[in-house]
Amino acid sequence: MIEAMQAAPEWQVTRWFNTPAPITLASLRGRVVVVEAFQMLCPGCVSHGLPQAQRVRQAFPAEAVAVIGLHTVFEHHEAMTPVALEAFLHEYRIGFPVGVDMPSADGPIPRTMRVYGLRGTPTLLLIDRRGRLRHHHFGQVEDLALGAQIAMLMGEQQA
Amino acid sequence: MIEAMQAAPEWQVTRWFNTPAPITLASLRGRVVVVEAFQMLCPGCVSHGLPQAQRVRQAFPAEAVAVIGLHTVFEHHEAMTPVALEAFLHEYRIGFPVGVDMPSADGPIPRTMRVYGLRGTPTLLLIDRRGRLRHHHFGQVEDLALGAQIAMLMGEQQA
Amino acid sequence: MIEAMQAAPEWQVTRWFNTPAPITLASLRGRVVVVEAFQMLCPGCVSHGLPQAQRVRQAFPAEAVAVIGLHTVFEHHEAMTPVALEAFLHEYRIGFPVGVDMPSADGPIPRTMRVYGLRGTPTLLLIDRRGRLRHHHFGQVEDLALGAQIAMLMGEQQA
Amino acid sequence: MIEAMQAAPEWQVTRWFNTPAPITLASLRGRVVVVEAFQMLCPGCVSHGLPQAQRVRQAFPAEAVAVIGLHTVFEHHEAMTPVALEAFLHEYRIGFPVGVDMPSADGPIPRTMRVYGLRGTPTLLLIDRRGRLRHHHFGQVEDLALGAQIAMLMGEQQA
Repeated sequence: MIEAMQAAPEWQVTRWFNTPAPITLASLRGRVVVVEAFQMLCPGCVSHGLPQAQRVRQAFPAEAVAVIGLHTVFEHHEAMTPVALEAFLHEYRIGFPVGVDMPSADGPIPRTMRVYGLRGTPTLLLIDRRGRLRHHHFGQVEDLALGAQIAMLMGEQQA
Repeated sequence: MIEAMQAAPEWQVTRWFNTPAPITLASLRGRVVVVEAFQMLCPGCVSHGLPQAQRVRQAFPAEAVAVIGLHTVFEHHEAMTPVALEAFLHEYRIGFPVGVDMPSADGPIPRTMRVYGLRGTPTLLLIDRRGRLRHHHFGQVEDLALGAQIAMLMGEQQA
Repeated sequence: MIEAMQAAPEWQVTRWFNTPAPITLASLRGRVVVVEAFQMLCPGCVSHGLPQAQRVRQAFPAEAVAVIGLHTVFEHHEAMTPVALEAFLHEYRIGFPVGVDMPSADGPIPRTMRVYGLRGTPTLLLIDRRGRLRHHHFGQVEDLALGAQIAMLMGEQQA
Repeated sequence: MIEAMQAAPEWQVTRWFNTPAPITLASLRGRVVVVEAFQMLCPGCVSHGLPQAQRVRQAFPAEAVAVIGLHTVFEHHEAMTPVALEAFLHEYRIGFPVGVDMPSADGPIPRTMRVYGLRGTPTLLLIDRRGRLRHHHFGQVEDLALGAQIAMLMGEQQA
């Protein structure tokens, strides 16, 4: 697992949805980045993680906080294909950019998920304005605590 | 649309899950049949229809009330394949039998959905002990009203 | 506790709200009677019991099903006075008739509550069209099961 | 209404619950103060405001954030007496200090409520570490936004 305060590694994505061009983590420097790692057939992602990510997107200005979905498929690969994801994002009205985590050559866990040491889905990562991983929430995190963490990162100097 | 009191047509199913053998509507004569027509990527099915069908299965004895899921895919066909449905049923812990509605040769709406004149998903159908379609709920129906309708059908004579 | 199939005893009420005249159980013969026994400062009554009673009132025709609230104060008597109850009913938009259970001369438990052997609040009682107590739910009962029980009682002959 | 950045006036309280001694606003200098103004028979306070205040109390350390309830009775005075409030706080497991806003000599609106220009209940006030009123939420405020506001005030210098 990536330790807090370490520079967060760049994500590895094979395809993007809801964005005209690929997005790099580096390009978001200066903004707090909220990464929602999910699988479209994960019930906790559908009922909790993704709605929370949508609330974050509504609650904070886009120029200060970027919300990025990461489709980290580590099971049922044949079911959660990009074409299925596209239908899912449409039906669930997910409007923020979503990248498909790149499959690994040698196992079910995709590359970004592996590099970040994610334990499962949903996982919410908070990356600060300088590009460092600061919080890693596996499972559920409450809105009050999350709002506080985001605000604290927003208040930090960029460099 | 099939009128109430008319004999409900047999469903046309290409594949079954959660049952060792195919199930015909005719074989359920004598029981009240609750058909939950859904699509796995329909948000209202996931948040309302399917949980309600699971509650029905818990609340009534299986020898009196049969709960049957029908996967009536009329959009995003490439996403909602049987292999995807299988993963979905596993992740959402759906335990009642689910049949895949047979695709039509000449349009996106599958055969059983067309014969029954369903307008969309979720739709809940109630078939009485004599095999007649008695209630057709498109969208949401409240538990109190549904419980009452099921009980009234349970109380009717079979023949 | 009153046994099922026994005639339900008449309630003893000191004051009524939401009705122009006192209501006796005897006067409701021919209708299914749903009695919601509650205390205005009981959290489970506020979050579950009373909203459910309001849904019952909406879901079934008044000529077939009567919904009656019974304020069975057995603790905090000095807080849950009739004047406080009146404000509560107004603020929570409770529209069905509510009677105040008559205090006992020799203990905190009011008379109707004692005669019926209620264990606490919320308690929902179902009385059939012939005036017999048929179901006694202490705590929570699910809408599906409740709807079914009401419908079964509605379907029975009156005499 | 008190303007943001102005020093928040001292509250006027006739009686306290859940604290061994009266609490003044002045004594909380150095902490962020969350004031939940409520009435015990206000449905929005019971379903939203008070549970949110309890979540705030859980989510933030007491030495940094003080949560104070203020019972601002402006209607149904005869129902929402201190003795009724005491029962309410017990039944709803409200553990933070609650003060009873002092009645006015010449009208239904109590003194602190009037001085702060509150429009109704629930109202949540945020007072910064220097004792200045910074946010005034009448009705509902989302947890994400509230968490962020509290965190920002926590991050400010005291003097």
